[in-house]
Amino acid sequence: MGEISCSNGIGNGNGVNGKTHSSLNGYRKSCWYEEEIEENLRWCFALNSILHTGASRYQDIALLDTKPFGKALIIDGKLQSAEVDEFIYHESLVHPALLHHSSPKTVFIMGGGEGSTAREILRHKTAVKVVMCDIDEEVVDFCKAYLVVNREAFCDPRLEVIINDARAELEIGKECYDVIIGDLADPIEGGPCYKLYTKAFYEHTVKPKLNRGGIFVTQAGPAGIFSHTEVFSCICNTLKQVFKYVVPYSAHIPSFADTWGWVMASDSPFTLSADELDSRIKQRIKGENRYLDGKTFSSASTLSKAVRKS
Amino acid sequence: MGEISCSNGIGNGNGVNGKTHSSLNGYRKSCWYEEEIEENLRWCFALNSILHTGASRYQDIALLDTKPFGKALIIDGKLQSAEVDEFIYHESLVHPALLHHSSPKTVFIMGGGEGSTAREILRHKTAVKVVMCDIDEEVVDFCKAYLVVNREAFCDPRLEVIINDARAELEIGKECYDVIIGDLADPIEGGPCYKLYTKAFYEHTVKPKLNRGGIFVTQAGPAGIFSHTEVFSCICNTLKQVFKYVVPYSAHIPSFADTWGWVMASDSPFTLSADELDSRIKQRIKGENRYLDGKTFSSASTLSKAVRKS
Amino acid sequence: MGEISCSNGIGNGNGVNGKTHSSLNGYRKSCWYEEEIEENLRWCFALNSILHTGASRYQDIALLDTKPFGKALIIDGKLQSAEVDEFIYHESLVHPALLHHSSPKTVFIMGGGEGSTAREILRHKTAVKVVMCDIDEEVVDFCKAYLVVNREAFCDPRLEVIINDARAELEIGKECYDVIIGDLADPIEGGPCYKLYTKAFYEHTVKPKLNRGGIFVTQAGPAGIFSHTEVFSCICNTLKQVFKYVVPYSAHIPSFADTWGWVMASDSPFTLSADELDSRIKQRIKGENRYLDGKTFSSASTLSKAVRKS
Amino acid sequence: MGEISCSNGIGNGNGVNGKTHSSLNGYRKSCWYEEEIEENLRWCFALNSILHTGASRYQDIALLDTKPFGKALIIDGKLQSAEVDEFIYHESLVHPALLHHSSPKTVFIMGGGEGSTAREILRHKTAVKVVMCDIDEEVVDFCKAYLVVNREAFCDPRLEVIINDARAELEIGKECYDVIIGDLADPIEGGPCYKLYTKAFYEHTVKPKLNRGGIFVTQAGPAGIFSHTEVFSCICNTLKQVFKYVVPYSAHIPSFADTWGWVMASDSPFTLSADELDSRIKQRIKGENRYLDGKTFSSASTLSKAVRKS
Repeated sequence: MGEISCSNGIGNGNGVNGKTHSSLNGYRKSCWYEEEIEENLRWCFALNSILHTGASRYQDIALLDTKPFGKALIIDGKLQSAEVDEFIYHESLVHPALLHHSSPKTVFIMGGGEGSTAREILRHKTAVKVVMCDIDEEVVDFCKAYLVVNREAFCDPRLEVIINDARAELEIGKECYDVIIGDLADPIEGGPCYKLYTKAFYEHTVKPKLNRGGIFVTQAGPAGIFSHTEVFSCICNTLKQVFKYVVPYSAHIPSFADTWGWVMASDSPFTLSADELDSRIKQRIKGENRYLDGKTFSSASTLSKAVRKS
Repeated sequence: MGEISCSNGIGNGNGVNGKTHSSLNGYRKSCWYEEEIEENLRWCFALNSILHTGASRYQDIALLDTKPFGKALIIDGKLQSAEVDEFIYHESLVHPALLHHSSPKTVFIMGGGEGSTAREILRHKTAVKVVMCDIDEEVVDFCKAYLVVNREAFCDPRLEVIINDARAELEIGKECYDVIIGDLADPIEGGPCYKLYTKAFYEHTVKPKLNRGGIFVTQAGPAGIFSHTEVFSCICNTLKQVFKYVVPYSAHIPSFADTWGWVMASDSPFTLSADELDSRIKQRIKGENRYLDGKTFSSASTLSKAVRKS
Repeated sequence: MGEISCSNGIGNGNGVNGKTHSSLNGYRKSCWYEEEIEENLRWCFALNSILHTGASRYQDIALLDTKPFGKALIIDGKLQSAEVDEFIYHESLVHPALLHHSSPKTVFIMGGGEGSTAREILRHKTAVKVVMCDIDEEVVDFCKAYLVVNREAFCDPRLEVIINDARAELEIGKECYDVIIGDLADPIEGGPCYKLYTKAFYEHTVKPKLNRGGIFVTQAGPAGIFSHTEVFSCICNTLKQVFKYVVPYSAHIPSFADTWGWVMASDSPFTLSADELDSRIKQRIKGENRYLDGKTFSSASTLSKAVRKS
Repeated sequence: MGEISCSNGIGNGNGVNGKTHSSLNGYRKSCWYEEEIEENLRWCFALNSILHTGASRYQDIALLDTKPFGKALIIDGKLQSAEVDEFIYHESLVHPALLHHSSPKTVFIMGGGEGSTAREILRHKTAVKVVMCDIDEEVVDFCKAYLVVNREAFCDPRLEVIINDARAELEIGKECYDVIIGDLADPIEGGPCYKLYTKAFYEHTVKPKLNRGGIFVTQAGPAGIFSHTEVFSCICNTLKQVFKYVVPYSAHIPSFADTWGWVMASDSPFTLSADELDSRIKQRIKGENRYLDGKTFSSASTLSKAVRKS
């Protein structure tokens, strides 16, 4: 998430008078961020500071400066992304789909208000137009204001930000896209995003808006050896009913305390070897990936026995 | 500790765009201040924000905005005083001694850099000169800057702030005082304040600097039914070897999760009834006490059986 | 790791082969009991072991061995009493009322299933009959089985245990009592005990069952400088509408992290001095009180300014 | 509350009288196991009970019943293995090396006192002799007594348990082994196992004790995208100086909140395909693996970009 532009002097390691102090850790470990991963499982980060807090019509939002994972974006008490390892999530969400496409020019992001997904897409030289459609204007404004690492992306003329329900937007829109990316909250029954993970939605809303050869990819919740049964397997199986080719893959994200999953789907086959992926990365992506390369994707898309079987 | 003058917009209950949100509590309970009262006992406050942090040559210092106790001053990971109940500590430390004195004009504070002890003394109409002698300039500057509730006190012309070791200052000074107040950290063996609680110090440094009829009072650590044996009983017994009249008293301070103790000592007897105390409070103290009155002091200075016996 | 066939030896401080080990604390501080005192305030005890757990139709119940406070009885996630300081609560609940009565022979306990209240009453030589009426048979059985300290009391022939709603029992019973003691959960609106704290209940159910000169006493919830407004003031004011003489008093209970309150009420005046109380304690009570004596009660029944005023 | 005379029935989900209760979770979430993964990062499991505790000359040991991960073996405040996912660790440690060996008859385990490593080895039909050499007799006895899942392994006549320092044992022994397995604590500088991860140890102690075609494998600490630099990369690089062929691999273990690493090394090449691994699994291993198969190993041994590069 990069640097914060304006700051209150917290956590810069300087004392009142700019003097440094050796045992500065003493009081700092007194402040903790605590997340309930599940009802019986907690994950706690020592805090440097609470940088910003806010709330929208839909959600509470906070930007914390944590000791183990740097700046962390929290929505409704759940970690969304952490400075030190959000690249794993966003590179995994964006690059496999765009790289497998022969020439991805237009991309639609469902959700993605944080801006990191757009940032990764905009690194692709082929990208001409990126539409980010998030329902929560305050989250988008919050991230625009405070996430310096995505500031350049938010200013990129190829990016169009729309505040709307992604489903409504896709349904009323006339345009089709080369790649559609789902960067939404997990499908909790009764939750706001539930309908954006159904067979009907994929079949009647998403698929018709893909250009020929188009690829759909979505984050797919936790994909750990136990947690994959929550939503990952289900999303994967749902997509298999709608698309001819479906590739699930996963990666361990330290700040999430779990392995995370994504699923990529298309009616065109995914045929690139690790070496071909590497060569497309070199040709098409500006800057260097920190996480994803050909071999990493090979490994990520070979699920472990227990996950594969269910 | 009152309001904070300059602020970063944290914890004001407004969202990014000033919109309020009903379930604002969700993410906020995610952030906690945690104090180890003892090795096996923790006390945790939900946090609104980490307002300021700093460090001096001696200590780490932080000002937190906590949900249960308001703004809290933390030094080296230990709560020093909390906005909502610091009046119990400071009224108890200051008023009994000053009220029992026939006309307290000059007061010396050992420590007290937070400013709240000076604030309470300066409410006494008889006070002509208050010397606050704290070793840690950064703490004094931090509190001057951020504790709005003490700002008036810090500006009072009757207050003289000296940055020095209280013992050295008393030893080199020529002046004597009507009341000397010990507002120092507990005497931990090997700790910085240990020597300021010894018989030798009371006899050779403090007592000679008291005017005739003078009174010494000191905070005396936890005074709960179990915790009083840590330092409270000991301070009390030490003072009895040096002064003719010694009055220990105590009060429960919610944010400390314990009953706290103070000891008042003099060679003149303490003879005021609850009603006489109340009438002196009315005559001498500007504004109204929130905690201390005559009956409260009667109760506070009648220790419970177990504490009294040891 | 599968099932464990046989078991135990928990918390006995011995290793597998009975060898002791110096740094035994290492792993032990890993296990904690955590209580939410309020939504924004937590109180955590390091655990030695989880001795027993159970559940009744009404409540969950657990007996923990905690490091700071010894064995602790937990009902529905709330600490009921802790080995090291339950004597403060139970001596305060029982002795002031029984001592102020000229000759308390019969006592009715509403609730009190733990047995400690009965234990304290049975120490009074005047006591001839004690009725403990608790609605939760499983809690009574649990405490009978596991609280060795109350075992003698549970076997005392003067004690009659009735499993019933205390209100129903008082209403159908014909007998009157010298002292009636309320040892029930706090009156939370909508909670199970709410109706046992109303004016109607005191007037029509309790008072008619008191013998002439009879005394009613009830635990009255937290009585700290802030927390007394929750229920303590209210119970006190309610009782003043029903009885001529009402004496509220309070004491800090370390394991509760708060000052606790009780209220004693009668149509006969409470006139004993501290010395008279001490002499009745000597005459009437077997064994020595650990907490309550005359001076302690004087102090406890002199409320601090803020509590007194509301 | 005094002593408890007899005991138990913990965690059986039954109340005092065997009645079950719907909201049993209330009090249970009050008890937590808390581990400091690093100084600034905590991982907390709700507890059902503390089953057993003990201590040896070397270490503190506890068996906890946790809600999220089942029974958990804790040594010196660090989780060693948890019932629900220890199979990931132990299958990964044992099977790749034994499967890549043409016919592993004799195996030496350095450490492994828990018994799970032996259990996995003994599932191999080729295994004739397994020597487990652990320094801590009490840990071995504790695990023998309480880990029912390994009871059969501990009774297997092919297993020989030796209480000794693994290095000393290898040095004095005359025998050579087909596979040597390192199941020791991480090499912390100054820690007890540090010397068992050095080039000298691998070269002069381990390698000479391998039969021709023999394989050495060791657990190699955390192998996450950040944590792999702690010891994993180093162990891998050290082994490359001693053996011709070195295969590092990793897997996410939920209860460890991290990806874990192992390194396999030999002077004979590792040439099996995923299918060949699967067919050897079928031929040689009794029962079915829960984690490891050919594809899983392919994925596990293809490290992600960041880990591979360092």
